[in-house]
Amino acid sequence: MEHGFIAWAKQRAMRLPKIKLGIGDDCALIAPDGADAVVTTDSLCEGTHFILEECGPYAVGRKLLAVNLSDLASMAAEPVAVFLSLCLPRTNAESIAAEIYEAVCDGCQKYSVAIGGGDTNVWDGPLVVHMTAIGRARENGCWLRSGAKPGDRLVVTGKLGGSLLGKHLDFEPRLELARELYQLGIVNAATDISDGLGVDLLNLTVASRCGAEVDLDAIPISDAAIERSQGSGAAPLEHALGDGEDFELLLAVDSNRLGDLPSEVAGIPLTQIGTFVSRTGLWARNKRGLVQLPARGYVHS
Amino acid sequence: MEHGFIAWAKQRAMRLPKIKLGIGDDCALIAPDGADAVVTTDSLCEGTHFILEECGPYAVGRKLLAVNLSDLASMAAEPVAVFLSLCLPRTNAESIAAEIYEAVCDGCQKYSVAIGGGDTNVWDGPLVVHMTAIGRARENGCWLRSGAKPGDRLVVTGKLGGSLLGKHLDFEPRLELARELYQLGIVNAATDISDGLGVDLLNLTVASRCGAEVDLDAIPISDAAIERSQGSGAAPLEHALGDGEDFELLLAVDSNRLGDLPSEVAGIPLTQIGTFVSRTGLWARNKRGLVQLPARGYVHS
Repeated sequence: MEHGFIAWAKQRAMRLPKIKLGIGDDCALIAPDGADAVVTTDSLCEGTHFILEECGPYAVGRKLLAVNLSDLASMAAEPVAVFLSLCLPRTNAESIAAEIYEAVCDGCQKYSVAIGGGDTNVWDGPLVVHMTAIGRARENGCWLRSGAKPGDRLVVTGKLGGSLLGKHLDFEPRLELARELYQLGIVNAATDISDGLGVDLLNLTVASRCGAEVDLDAIPISDAAIERSQGSGAAPLEHALGDGEDFELLLAVDSNRLGDLPSEVAGIPLTQIGTFVSRTGLWARNKRGLVQLPARGYVHS
Repeated sequence: MEHGFIAWAKQRAMRLPKIKLGIGDDCALIAPDGADAVVTTDSLCEGTHFILEECGPYAVGRKLLAVNLSDLASMAAEPVAVFLSLCLPRTNAESIAAEIYEAVCDGCQKYSVAIGGGDTNVWDGPLVVHMTAIGRARENGCWLRSGAKPGDRLVVTGKLGGSLLGKHLDFEPRLELARELYQLGIVNAATDISDGLGVDLLNLTVASRCGAEVDLDAIPISDAAIERSQGSGAAPLEHALGDGEDFELLLAVDSNRLGDLPSEVAGIPLTQIGTFVSRTGLWARNKRGLVQLPARGYVHS
């Protein structure tokens, strides 16, 4: 439901006052007095985004912070403060809250982020955790989804797929990588991979009013994607394209600046996996030539 | 549980980077580049803050926005943008989301606020709605809880008590009143009444390191408090002191400037109901003299 709702919501909000960048990117940009504040918000619900009994509250807090910081990383923003909001089940409310908060504090220490405040409620439902993260844009602005141009190279960080085997609960938001890459001035657009390479790339191309041709053979596949494929019957590539929650970055890199693109930053590989093209949609090349790549699927050749 | 948790949470976050004003006031203040952004966050959970079957989704959206704007009003901040996050039950997810959003849009139109973005999830639990609101501080700053001084007059807006009979779902955040009062420069501290006059006043005095003597006879009692007292067996004053969710403002007004205090602003009465004193705690005068006023209770004389 989310995509149709977002499109409608965007439309419905058009008569309201405008901020610099609103619904539809990874974060919003508010500029109350010239300085850009970058804002993002995410909820995690028990049963949908985590199984509390299996992972415990600490992992929930760690994921919540990392998901929000990943959104800031995808804009190359520097995190400033987070706001934590908890809807706690009655049983063990206090110890669950404390463990989540501990995880958030540990992460905030690591990434030098302040905890600005929040809200706690105890209720009859399962655990819902919510965070709003606020960052600062870099001196010359930040990465948007809308900046990709035909000819730009499509670059991905890290390896993809199989996140459910563990990475979705414990991953490194690409803040440091984003900071270093931003300084090079070679990235025209970016997003993070939360819904899956296919879906998030499609969103990026739609925002940039272009398309992308993906080199399927070049997609870096994680060991977890291979492991999952053994049980699922789907190919590892299918997991890399569709699993989601990789929280890696998808980047549009200026083709004239490819010489400045490092092969890795802070130990994270950067892999060229395609090219942005003027024809809208996602495309892949197989034996039969150029075929459409379904956002949620995989082209069998 | 919330108060103990907040105290602990504040302590635990002390080693993290600081923002201008963090945990413990109605909103946080972040100043990424000199300009103050005022941030607040609130969740409403089905069954705790609203009965969805009784009130419908539109009322939930309206309350969510109003609760957040009330926090901004209590800092005299000007609202800029809100971020909406929904955890929707599977049944009727789309129509519930649309009605909530409609209510938020209507309110944003009314108060000239942007919708900056958000997040929607469908899950197996009941409805949880969440909002973060971001505002701009006034030219000379904003009202804090910590500014009350012994001698300041305690002033309340509107009438109190019985909010459960309807007002808690449909109230006017005191933005306009706050804006007009702020310009007079007579208010030293403020908060809004969400937990109840007693509890919120106690929080204000603790933040200001002082106490307050309340004139119980002067407290403006709403018709709803009287109506509730007929069924509850408690006195109307008890409802006015303890019910909460009035979303009126509690103000500390400079005693040298009482001549400039209007009796009403935009049709909302301003009533003097006591005085801030140097002795900590809440106090009331009855036939036996000065007695302690329990934050959640009522002094029977």
